[in-house]
Amino acid sequence: MKRTASEEMAVERTHRRHEVEPLQTIDRLSLNQITTDRWSLREAAEGCVRAGVPWIALWRHKVAEAGLQESRRIIRDTGLQVSSLCRGGMFPAATAAEREARIDDNRRAVDEAAELGADTLVLVCGPAPDRDIDAARAMVEAGIERLVPYAESCGIRLGIEPLHPMYAAERSVIVTLEQANAVARAYAPEQVGVVIDVFHVWWDPKLYEGIADAAGRIVGYHVSDWIVPTPDLLMGRGMMGDGVIELRRIRAAVEAAGYNGPIEVEIFNRELWDRPGDEVLALMKERYLEHV
Amino acid sequence: MKRTASEEMAVERTHRRHEVEPLQTIDRLSLNQITTDRWSLREAAEGCVRAGVPWIALWRHKVAEAGLQESRRIIRDTGLQVSSLCRGGMFPAATAAEREARIDDNRRAVDEAAELGADTLVLVCGPAPDRDIDAARAMVEAGIERLVPYAESCGIRLGIEPLHPMYAAERSVIVTLEQANAVARAYAPEQVGVVIDVFHVWWDPKLYEGIADAAGRIVGYHVSDWIVPTPDLLMGRGMMGDGVIELRRIRAAVEAAGYNGPIEVEIFNRELWDRPGDEVLALMKERYLEHV
Repeated sequence: MKRTASEEMAVERTHRRHEVEPLQTIDRLSLNQITTDRWSLREAAEGCVRAGVPWIALWRHKVAEAGLQESRRIIRDTGLQVSSLCRGGMFPAATAAEREARIDDNRRAVDEAAELGADTLVLVCGPAPDRDIDAARAMVEAGIERLVPYAESCGIRLGIEPLHPMYAAERSVIVTLEQANAVARAYAPEQVGVVIDVFHVWWDPKLYEGIADAAGRIVGYHVSDWIVPTPDLLMGRGMMGDGVIELRRIRAAVEAAGYNGPIEVEIFNRELWDRPGDEVLALMKERYLEHV
Repeated sequence: MKRTASEEMAVERTHRRHEVEPLQTIDRLSLNQITTDRWSLREAAEGCVRAGVPWIALWRHKVAEAGLQESRRIIRDTGLQVSSLCRGGMFPAATAAEREARIDDNRRAVDEAAELGADTLVLVCGPAPDRDIDAARAMVEAGIERLVPYAESCGIRLGIEPLHPMYAAERSVIVTLEQANAVARAYAPEQVGVVIDVFHVWWDPKLYEGIADAAGRIVGYHVSDWIVPTPDLLMGRGMMGDGVIELRRIRAAVEAAGYNGPIEVEIFNRELWDRPGDEVLALMKERYLEHV
């Protein structure tokens, strides 16, 4: 069968893609601690030190388990850098009082991020409280508008993370990079940026356009893989290289848009969670250099 | 908390939405036979007659089980109208020979649609054979380009169905209505249109824009619901009213874009499959009038 013009272009693009250089070091590698969910914050931090991983991304429930001051001490003592705190957001709610309570909780998340030396708070924006997804999107915008002055006063940047559309009903009504960019654009890049997680955005026909439009505003980059067949909505992420995501091409686009910060490995996967953390970190380093 | 301008707009829109009239009859109701998966084609057709459902959508594997000529006889004898045949597509493949075989199979699907009196063949466009999703998208375009003249000569219109992005790796690299519209636009509306299934598109921030852009080119409308929590990627669809999709609002938009054809109920759901088909059809009729 003769190739069409668009097929020819695709083939050529594939060839160009192979020219993207692999990463030579793990200087930018960050363990998002959900990847080693069985580890406490201290265990994860010490695991990073043993593995020579210089960055870590923390989750609030893990910080709460260890205690905020103790978490801060652990981070300081291990010398790790905190790439982000997960997570603020969850803005939509049925009543004004509930929405106000969410804002209060987001302020606490900002405080924690500042205390831990993270400069970015990741926002998972939340689902609708009812069937009205547009109203929920308006509540997200209103919530961010409320939060920005406080976050700025604490030196914390908000990072809107578009989630995969399969989470639209349960986790976030912000589901495309285009949408996240549109919300972020109302603010200075130091106030509000976007967090790009390959698992959430890889399917998007407008992905590379969205990445280019996010130039100067990308405040986080997360990697994992989309495995086939996909076993589960939440726990189906795979280690880089085990799935179908064009990791190197996406990284090249993100770098071309000006992002050279930490690269978080964030994997929800029961099988990985059941393995010893040190093994997971060894595999993560190997796959990072090979596939990211 | 004071409402922002965009929240006020959302509230107002919600009020307007309630003004959409419910459907008064089941004249447009079509049973997509996957909803009663345990039924053979004959059982499904006879079930529709008993329930007074005037339309049916057929699946190729069910037609094959019954035999094409026998299927045709059943449809003629029951007096049902066929809203569509599911499905052609699956264009991308690793080699030119495999892609050619897919085209041959699509030609057979067109023949079957014509034989059964369906005017539309639904296209589920297929996943990439490797990590190169853009190349696969080009293969889809090339495949449709190959198929159109044959389909037209048989009086069959092709309906590109964008699938939910969670199926991008396993079923279709066409995942948004915007993308389906862009592919369809290269042809006359009598040749290539789009099929809108609420389950696949409800999450899309550009949904209503996409529906308006599809005006005059919508060749099928499918309903079900998105249930929360979502139990499974494939089998998680619910009966209309059991989930979070704004069914009436979406139907109003589809009608405003000029579509007044059959409305297929297409539900993959183990629990429904385990119930007697007549019960499922009774519930489907009730929910159609109440929620669609």
